[in-house]
Order: sequence, then structure tokens, then C-alpha cells
Amino acid sequence: MLEPDRILRLEDDRVVLLDQRLLPLEQTEVACSSAAEVADAIRTMVVRGAPAIGIAAAYGYALAAARGEDLDAADAVLRASRPTAVNLGWALDRMRDDPSYEQARRIHDDEVERCRRMAAHAAELFVPGTRALTHCNAGGLATGGYGSAVGALLTAWERGLLERVWVDETRPLLQGARLTAWELETAGVPYAVIADSAAASLMAAGDVDCVVTGADRIAANGDAANKIGTYSLAVLARHHGIPLYVVAPTSTVDLATPDGSAIPIEERDPSEVTARFPARNPAFDVTPNALVAAIVTEAGVHRPPYVHSLQGALAAT
Amino acid sequence: MLEPDRILRLEDDRVVLLDQRLLPLEQTEVACSSAAEVADAIRTMVVRGAPAIGIAAAYGYALAAARGEDLDAADAVLRASRPTAVNLGWALDRMRDDPSYEQARRIHDDEVERCRRMAAHAAELFVPGTRALTHCNAGGLATGGYGSAVGALLTAWERGLLERVWVDETRPLLQGARLTAWELETAGVPYAVIADSAAASLMAAGDVDCVVTGADRIAANGDAANKIGTYSLAVLARHHGIPLYVVAPTSTVDLATPDGSAIPIEERDPSEVTARFPARNPAFDVTPNALVAAIVTEAGVHRPPYVHSLQGALAAT
Repeated sequence: MLEPDRILRLEDDRVVLLDQRLLPLEQTEVACSSAAEVADAIRTMVVRGAPAIGIAAAYGYALAAARGEDLDAADAVLRASRPTAVNLGWALDRMRDDPSYEQARRIHDDEVERCRRMAAHAAELFVPGTRALTHCNAGGLATGGYGSAVGALLTAWERGLLERVWVDETRPLLQGARLTAWELETAGVPYAVIADSAAASLMAAGDVDCVVTGADRIAANGDAANKIGTYSLAVLARHHGIPLYVVAPTSTVDLATPDGSAIPIEERDPSEVTARFPARNPAFDVTPNALVAAIVTEAGVHRPPYVHSLQGALAAT
Repeated sequence: MLEPDRILRLEDDRVVLLDQRLLPLEQTEVACSSAAEVADAIRTMVVRGAPAIGIAAAYGYALAAARGEDLDAADAVLRASRPTAVNLGWALDRMRDDPSYEQARRIHDDEVERCRRMAAHAAELFVPGTRALTHCNAGGLATGGYGSAVGALLTAWERGLLERVWVDETRPLLQGARLTAWELETAGVPYAVIADSAAASLMAAGDVDCVVTGADRIAANGDAANKIGTYSLAVLARHHGIPLYVVAPTSTVDLATPDGSAIPIEERDPSEVTARFPARNPAFDVTPNALVAAIVTEAGVHRPPYVHSLQGALAAT
């Protein structure tokens, strides 16, 4: 497992980020000296993954406070760096009262600890010999350490419940082929990368027992925004009678968003798909709660109706 | 539209193929001097698309005959060059009795003429303002001229029925982003390339009116093998109440194959997906007839039960 400090940390009054755009071929770091630079790193996906960008924003805010920056401006630039994940706002709300390095570090530690707990809950959903399919990277890189969906896979592997993982390559930025494959390789978990469009025929062949993904924002009713392609998997899984599990920390649950239609979906530069032709490039999609078999947070395994189970979970945290 | 002779032709006792692996950035040709070299070009996808590889095999066989090669060996190497499309065997069966250049040229001309006719039939399925989604390249490049699914789109566009085309980029070899986009661009048809996994959310947003694809082999019951990802689109289209139309010539219908389970699915080199990690790379999938709203051949628009409508269509050709 990647050490949390390798993924992101404070060092000498700078926020140092492992550059996730170049992994795994190049392992380089980006050092940010202001909240605006951290916001830039979030926007350009030097750091990505809903919990990880929340942690980066917390460090960026603490940096701004230490440097005597205008904290309202720091909050605004960090909050606006990406629109879909709710973790940015969640982390910044927690920094308002205590903009210290220690508070940011606590948020980071807490997220990793949440991953451990949700992974233990999620592993209960696995039976021996499970062949799981995952999309994008909901690993340690996305959460500041250990991972949500990938954390669940690691725990299931340690418990002898996991046979193999199918990894969607996850176009256009290939987070699955680059990041999830690297994390599973490092952990010694058997896996194979597939083209995103091959998932359906693996399901039809009976080679997929469950789909496990993270989330960028979960609405109060359980509708879950995640990397583009997750909704596609959810429809395909339902058609084949395969459960889809969403594994995410409570920091990703947004009770103020009643359902998926209220979640802003980021449209990124078409050049990520193709530099030469007209393109559309929605970065996320929303999976309706009806297609989600369970939502797993560090508080436990939540079942429909989510409008009740999520409220209960958040009330308990 | 690309001239059929630019896509593939006989010239000075060689089969000259437009190299589809490099399009559209580089427009180069590969000249083959034997049946084995043509088979190599088919295997490495210099030429691809079920009707086009059938035509290439016909030219290759005629070349072998003119050169005095062993024709049984030529037939065998060409027939085995790719496993899924039935057009290789279909074209070679037609070359047996008349292995002349003229016969190969006739097969080529006939395929382009079939495209024109099936496109006219398919255009009847379009209503004004249709936003169609297509996968891979079932264009002129795939059929030796005009195209099957793309031919239908071109005819619908000429008739003022088409608003725009969503083009799946089609991983791993990007035939959509490279070939279909180029053909539509050349024809002046409005289109945008999307990541394959974005199709579902466009459907959910109400932005897709129909899905139109080609086929590599259609079984007697209407199950259709096509580029990996087509089955995925079929399930997604059904979930959203969107019709999926398969447009293909009768040379692609194989009444000797009772259903999709008997169609061999080519597994290509995992390095097409990723050079660095374990990968699976099935090149095709099978769409069950229950998910196909209509099959269009040059003989007309065929509806379920296909086991009857396809037999009738082929009896009439």
C-alpha cells in the first residue's frame, strides 16, 4: 500500500502532491505554495479522487492560513476547483474553525481510517471466489491512503474471498489502467485490465460476480455520481443480475442534495477524448439509487431506501 | 465519400490496401504480392470490417490464381486470417468457381451496391431530427465503399432526417474516433466523438434516438456479432427504450450458424489494451436477437422473429 504521506503531505510550508497524471511510468511530485496553486493542481488532476481532493483542499487552506492569505478567497478558489465531488466543501467547512496544519492532517488521517473501516464492512459482501469488476480508481491514490472500492478489494483479498479483479481501463484518462492496475499489482492481487466496453460481455459470460466502485457525491436518496461509465456499468450489472456496490466515506454523502439531478456534472475539455475532432467529454455520470445494491461507508453497509439509511448513518458519525 | 478503389484495389498484380491502422493522420498504402501477404494484412488490420476483408480475400485469391499459387493453400490462409466475420468464407466460396480478377472486382462492386440499397432501407427507420449513436466503423472503409451503418447515416443525412451522430471512440483501436469521425467529417455530417462509457449517460439525458451498428456475423436467429462494445450498447439502449438497428449486407448473414453461441469470438493481443499490465482483449461480442429492433440488409428491413425473416431475405438474394 502507498503510504498516505507519499500521496499528499505538508512539507516546508508547501503542499506536496504525487503527480497522478504521470503514474505509474513517472513518479514525480508537484509542490504548491499557495491555495491557488493547490486549486490548480486539483483542476488539472495532479491529485484526483473525491476524498483526496478534499484532503488537498484542507492542506491548501491550512497553507493559506499560515501564509496570511485572504481565507475567504482561499476557500472560494479551492471550493470551485472541481464541481462534482462534495468532499471539497466538506473538508473546507471543517477547516473554517481551525485552519491549522494539525486540523488538515487530522482530516487526512481520518479519511484513511474511514477507508479501513468501510473496507471491513464491504468485505462482508464478498463470498469466496468473488470476481469483482471496478471502474476508475477508488484506491489509495483517490482517498489519501488505502482506498474505498480498492480498499474493499484489498481487504477481501486478505480474507481469501477475492479470486480476481477486472479493471476497466476508464477512458479518457485511463485511471483504471494506470492507477488501479498499479495499486493491485503492488498489492499482489490478480487482475486484468479491460476496455470499458468489454465489461458487458464478461458479465454475459458469467465472469463477474459484483461491481464495486467509489463515488464523488452521493445524494440523500442514494443516487451516486461517479466517474463517467459507472452508470453504464450499473445498467449492465442490473441486466445481468449482478450487484453494484458503492464504497465511499460519509464525507462523500451530501444530504443537502436530494437526488442525482441536483449534482453538477463536470464537462471537461474535449481534447481529453480526441485532439482532432469534435467531442463531448462529461467526466461523471449519476447512477440512480434503484441500480445500487448497497452503499458502504465507514458506518456500515446501507441498503435501500437510502433516504433513510444514509440519514441514519450520517446522524451516527 | 471515399472511392472504392482508394480503399482496396488490384493494381499491377498486387492487392493495394489503404492502411487503416494509421488513418486519418497518415494516408499510406500497403501492397500485397501473395495470398499470404493479404492474409497478413487482414490479420494485422491494415484492412478491417467484415465486408472489406471479404473483398480483400477475394482479391487475394484472384492474385494467387494469377500467380499460379496453390489455391487450396491460398483459401486456407485467407479463410483463417480472422475468425469472427463470415464474409471471408462467403467471398472465398464465390471465388472457387471463377478465381478471376473480374470475379473479385464483381464482389467488390456488389458489396458497394448492397450498401447503397441497405442504406436506403435503413433511412426509412429515421425520423426528422434523429440523433444516432454508432460504434466502431461500419463505414466505407469497412465495406469497400459507402458503408453499412455509416451508409445509412449518410443517406439519412442527405434526406434531411439526421440531426447529429454520436461516435463511440471504440477502444482499444479507436476505429470510431479515427475512421468514422473522418468519414463523417469528410461528408459534412455533424458529429461528436465520445468515450465509449459515456453512451449510457447520453441515453439517460434523452440525447440518443437510435443506435446504428454494422455486424461481423449475423446468426440465423438474428444474434449479431460485432465489435466489442456493441452488446453493451444493446443492453443500454433497451434499458432506455431506444431501438438498436444492425445494418449489414446479406454476405454477413450466416444461416449455418444457428445462434450467437456458435460464433467464434476473436481474442486479440492484450497489448492493444495496455502494454504494461495483464489484460483481456476480446475483439467482438454477440448481441442477442432480443435486443435488436431491426436488421437491415440490402434486401430490406427485417423484424423478429429473425429466424424467419433472415431466411426469407437470403432466399430472395
